[in-house]
Amino acid sequence: MKLVSYRNQGRSGFGAVKDDGVVDLTKRLPAVADLAALVANPADLAQARRLVDTASPDFALAALALEPVIPNPSKIICVGINYVAHAAEAGRTVGQYPVIFHRFAQTLVAHGAPIIRPRVSNQFDFEAELAVVIGKGGSHIKPEDAMDHVAGYTCFNDASVRDWQFHTHQYGMGKNFRGTGSLGPWLVTADEIRDYRELSIQGSLNGECLQTGRLSELAFDIPGLIAYVSQALDWQPGDILATGTPSGIGFKRQPPIFLKPGDTFDVVIPGVGTLSNPVADEA
Amino acid sequence: MKLVSYRNQGRSGFGAVKDDGVVDLTKRLPAVADLAALVANPADLAQARRLVDTASPDFALAALALEPVIPNPSKIICVGINYVAHAAEAGRTVGQYPVIFHRFAQTLVAHGAPIIRPRVSNQFDFEAELAVVIGKGGSHIKPEDAMDHVAGYTCFNDASVRDWQFHTHQYGMGKNFRGTGSLGPWLVTADEIRDYRELSIQGSLNGECLQTGRLSELAFDIPGLIAYVSQALDWQPGDILATGTPSGIGFKRQPPIFLKPGDTFDVVIPGVGTLSNPVADEA
Repeated sequence: MKLVSYRNQGRSGFGAVKDDGVVDLTKRLPAVADLAALVANPADLAQARRLVDTASPDFALAALALEPVIPNPSKIICVGINYVAHAAEAGRTVGQYPVIFHRFAQTLVAHGAPIIRPRVSNQFDFEAELAVVIGKGGSHIKPEDAMDHVAGYTCFNDASVRDWQFHTHQYGMGKNFRGTGSLGPWLVTADEIRDYRELSIQGSLNGECLQTGRLSELAFDIPGLIAYVSQALDWQPGDILATGTPSGIGFKRQPPIFLKPGDTFDVVIPGVGTLSNPVADEA
Repeated sequence: MKLVSYRNQGRSGFGAVKDDGVVDLTKRLPAVADLAALVANPADLAQARRLVDTASPDFALAALALEPVIPNPSKIICVGINYVAHAAEAGRTVGQYPVIFHRFAQTLVAHGAPIIRPRVSNQFDFEAELAVVIGKGGSHIKPEDAMDHVAGYTCFNDASVRDWQFHTHQYGMGKNFRGTGSLGPWLVTADEIRDYRELSIQGSLNGECLQTGRLSELAFDIPGLIAYVSQALDWQPGDILATGTPSGIGFKRQPPIFLKPGDTFDVVIPGVGTLSNPVADEA
């Protein structure tokens, strides 16, 4: 099942993609507040599946304004330096522990919406990533149980403002500019992905593939990441784990490539989806 | 005015401290959702002031279960290495830009509640800080206008798990353990603090003062910090800016001092308040 969050006639909704349309689950599951609540509860998710099997789409997908897959996750946890080739281009090696940083939900944008090059920098760069959406929350999760907490997968562009990222030794500011974290287009439920390690990822600028990777290359795998973070703080339904970007980012190229208005950047993960965003300057 | 968030008979509320009691503003300002909403709006805040002037307290302060001053801020932005003497003990120098990292709201605890030493570490350390509570939101704020965005001040203990903080070059994990960010006891509105640079701060472990500083020592001052962050993302009402800790933290002492169950750590800022928390082990 492919699940989306959207705005329709001024109201937030969620539903499932079917053919070229969307089955409205907001009206069919009135006790479920949003997509994060839906994926938290296996019984609700099974009910959604049954409803979608027999329903006709309520809307054309192209007619809806999508929201970020989870519009307001309580946490977005990002992993840096998690592909060996990207670690090399960044001048780093993979260490004993994953490099973790955070993004605020207020920086998210949806599939199709512009990502925003800030007023204060021209060093606006792309990072194609696979994102995990957490279903069942939990703490002190063992790696062997961790995949039970995965609701599904989506695409993420962890677009980064490089000069600000390196203003100091802490990345945070460069990873938290307004309108720079694209998440979507939809959540593909975990049952549709036999093994995430079989997935591949591409990042394309204006149709030219600049980043490629395979999820089997992750230095820290998804079960290990979920388990590691859960020792510190509880995962909650709808939380996002961004698994890191493969090599090929713009600012390590010679000459560097940065995003500019008029560009379009796509994160392509066959079997999951294509997340596409134009680039615009901050107003 | 001293403003608090609390739980009372299973419901969240907010109010103002008066003598030994609390004037319930939840019932008197039914259109205002919470303390973050109250401080966002100068007219509501002025109305609250008039109500408190004439009202008798509804509750004894000691009878209420306080919540973190802002129970669920959209952002908690922390500044590292912001007192020169602390930078020296940490083996760092103050650079051109402030060191920014983030804390998730889910890690907050209230005045009086235990802060939690995690299962996975004994290196649980204290950091006494002055926290700014943002009132009016905004972006691209000029330093000379920044103090207009300050609703008030409170105390913060940015309790940190040192081994996890240095698992990698990014601090995030060690700053985001469950039950480690204490915020309170109340918000003192900005009109009661003539100049924050006249404030002093102490951190005391079991009554012994281990940290002292003056807010005039900040390497990056509050207007500058508000302005810097606002270039990247919008401040929102109720957001928290934690201004950094003075020297004297536990893990740089010889021998190191770490928090353990049975300890009590106090953040004391005369004119603002005293934030006191016992320490307990994670269940």
